[in-house]
Amino acid sequence: MFNSEFLSLRWENLYKKLEDLKLDGLFVSHQTNITYLTNFNSRDSYLLIKLSSNINKKASVFFITDFRYWQEVRQNLKGLSFEKLNGSIFKKIVNLSKLLKIKRLGFEAKYLSYAEYEKIREDLSLDTELVPTYDLIDSLREIKSDIEIQKIKKATEINIEAFRYARKIIKKGLSEKEIARKLEDFIKRKGAKPAFETIVAVGPNSSFPHHISGDYKIRDSEIILIDMGVDFQGYKSDLTRVFFLGKIPHIIRKIKEIVIKAQELALETLTSKISISKIDKTARDYIKKNGYGKFFGHALGHGIGLEVHEEPYISLKNKNMIENGMVFTVEPAIYLPGKFGIRVEDMVWFNKGKPEVLSATLDK
Amino acid sequence: MFNSEFLSLRWENLYKKLEDLKLDGLFVSHQTNITYLTNFNSRDSYLLIKLSSNINKKASVFFITDFRYWQEVRQNLKGLSFEKLNGSIFKKIVNLSKLLKIKRLGFEAKYLSYAEYEKIREDLSLDTELVPTYDLIDSLREIKSDIEIQKIKKATEINIEAFRYARKIIKKGLSEKEIARKLEDFIKRKGAKPAFETIVAVGPNSSFPHHISGDYKIRDSEIILIDMGVDFQGYKSDLTRVFFLGKIPHIIRKIKEIVIKAQELALETLTSKISISKIDKTARDYIKKNGYGKFFGHALGHGIGLEVHEEPYISLKNKNMIENGMVFTVEPAIYLPGKFGIRVEDMVWFNKGKPEVLSATLDK
Repeated sequence: MFNSEFLSLRWENLYKKLEDLKLDGLFVSHQTNITYLTNFNSRDSYLLIKLSSNINKKASVFFITDFRYWQEVRQNLKGLSFEKLNGSIFKKIVNLSKLLKIKRLGFEAKYLSYAEYEKIREDLSLDTELVPTYDLIDSLREIKSDIEIQKIKKATEINIEAFRYARKIIKKGLSEKEIARKLEDFIKRKGAKPAFETIVAVGPNSSFPHHISGDYKIRDSEIILIDMGVDFQGYKSDLTRVFFLGKIPHIIRKIKEIVIKAQELALETLTSKISISKIDKTARDYIKKNGYGKFFGHALGHGIGLEVHEEPYISLKNKNMIENGMVFTVEPAIYLPGKFGIRVEDMVWFNKGKPEVLSATLDK
Repeated sequence: MFNSEFLSLRWENLYKKLEDLKLDGLFVSHQTNITYLTNFNSRDSYLLIKLSSNINKKASVFFITDFRYWQEVRQNLKGLSFEKLNGSIFKKIVNLSKLLKIKRLGFEAKYLSYAEYEKIREDLSLDTELVPTYDLIDSLREIKSDIEIQKIKKATEINIEAFRYARKIIKKGLSEKEIARKLEDFIKRKGAKPAFETIVAVGPNSSFPHHISGDYKIRDSEIILIDMGVDFQGYKSDLTRVFFLGKIPHIIRKIKEIVIKAQELALETLTSKISISKIDKTARDYIKKNGYGKFFGHALGHGIGLEVHEEPYISLKNKNMIENGMVFTVEPAIYLPGKFGIRVEDMVWFNKGKPEVLSATLDK
């Protein structure tokens, strides 16, 4: 349907999944998933997909949006039908389902709110069954194509440059917010955007895993933890490093070494045919063995791509196998409440049975 | 329960609503609503509220969060109970509901996903009824208190300063993205944050109501539309102005005058006891009368506060009456596809039966 090969492949994969689930229709409401399927930065829009049994045209796809995006969408998207929204999206879905004689209409259960679900269900014809689906498109997004890898690499490169810039500008008296501002401005000057609000956590603030940068100012002999991400053409990177002004105290050096070693061990597990949970467990066990288990309370990492946090989550709960094409962070940490926290986060691409650390050139 | 008077009032109002709906429990999952009720910037957290019949203590409130926020929350929040999350929030809600013997548990139907709803429903004891609620807390948020107005005013002031700065820096050859970057940096230097990605739309791009700033460069005799917002301590502002380099062509001047007049007429309707839909209709009718009706396709405005877009939406559909304490934008527009668009957006506080334009000092 779409001209570009990489888009066609995504659609083919989705059609297969729909056929497996015996769905002849799908309502897509998660904007990132629409962006993935259309290569167009979707906002406040929806897709309705109707599979057909026609060999030449596997499906009809309707892109539904309102006045605000109508002109832009019509100019940028080819190969699908457009439906302009004047009233409720739910009425539109109900009417289109009827018109297209959809028998089993899937929807994205993780993203559609209960209220939205109810509105569709109430009005839907009895001939159409409304079927919750889970991670249909999200799981396709786990495996990155070359084009996606290129953008993630570019985001990571700019992120690394921003960390080098951070090393240059960090000095006594600067506040967390000021550093964050300078870094975000740097990222924009490089033609990209911050992927999320830059975290600069100084001193005891570094012991909060998700600190919000504030007015705390850098003093000598305090940790400066920086967690920042870059969005390059929709694709994200996410890296964390800790900096230190002055002589590093023994305890901080020791904990940093444990965290770095935990990361190394996790990376060493990365061969084909290992379960994702094993990656997390390896790092966690090492931190535990060193007596800091209860100070590392979050998952080891997360998938990253069009979203900063996406599948695959690198956690004890994820029993899936590692697969070529997955991109994720590996970010062990130790947080000592009221004192300080150390987190080291890198971007990893699992490719041809081996891990490639995309942020390998950035000092730890 | 909470020490501060303004928080106590919010809770009292919520308890009344719960009693009206005969609910003895409420599960709050929308982060902004939790922030509103606790005055703490909530992320990845949940509230479970259990009403009691005890006169001295109207309710028990549980703040549920995980490792990442535990330390921060314990330091900052007083007057409620804490529950640490190690596994699923849904199991936690199910278990707490059982423990607290909740009979009718409300949830936020607009914010809880279908998948989340299903997870709770499946495991919930038969003794507990799961009841969808709509806009319980959102409707409380429509009416701003003095403390909220102060923050919205401060956000608006910084926004106005940023527009004055924009007027200074706009020059031929600068790209949309460069202007946006400079404005966002300006806002951060003032101790605030951009409330959303700044829209700079030059020339024909101004005809897209929600353009994404790109590499298009300013040339003479083209419109520069800037739509930007400021977040000051959680409270937002949102303003739009158009700029022009060189002599303004007659057609642009004419359309701008229609838009400004439409806004004036809308503001003149603002007296106690008028329906919100009337505000929209007044501006829309004037634009229609001038022959541009089909080029103004979105609502006239939106409520603003902790979120950029919140109740009350200023649209034809909103049949509620205007009330003292509401803060909203008034932003009529005319978009001529492929040519240009004009939108003028101001912040309005309805107070003591009269509109106060918070951005009145900013030239149009």
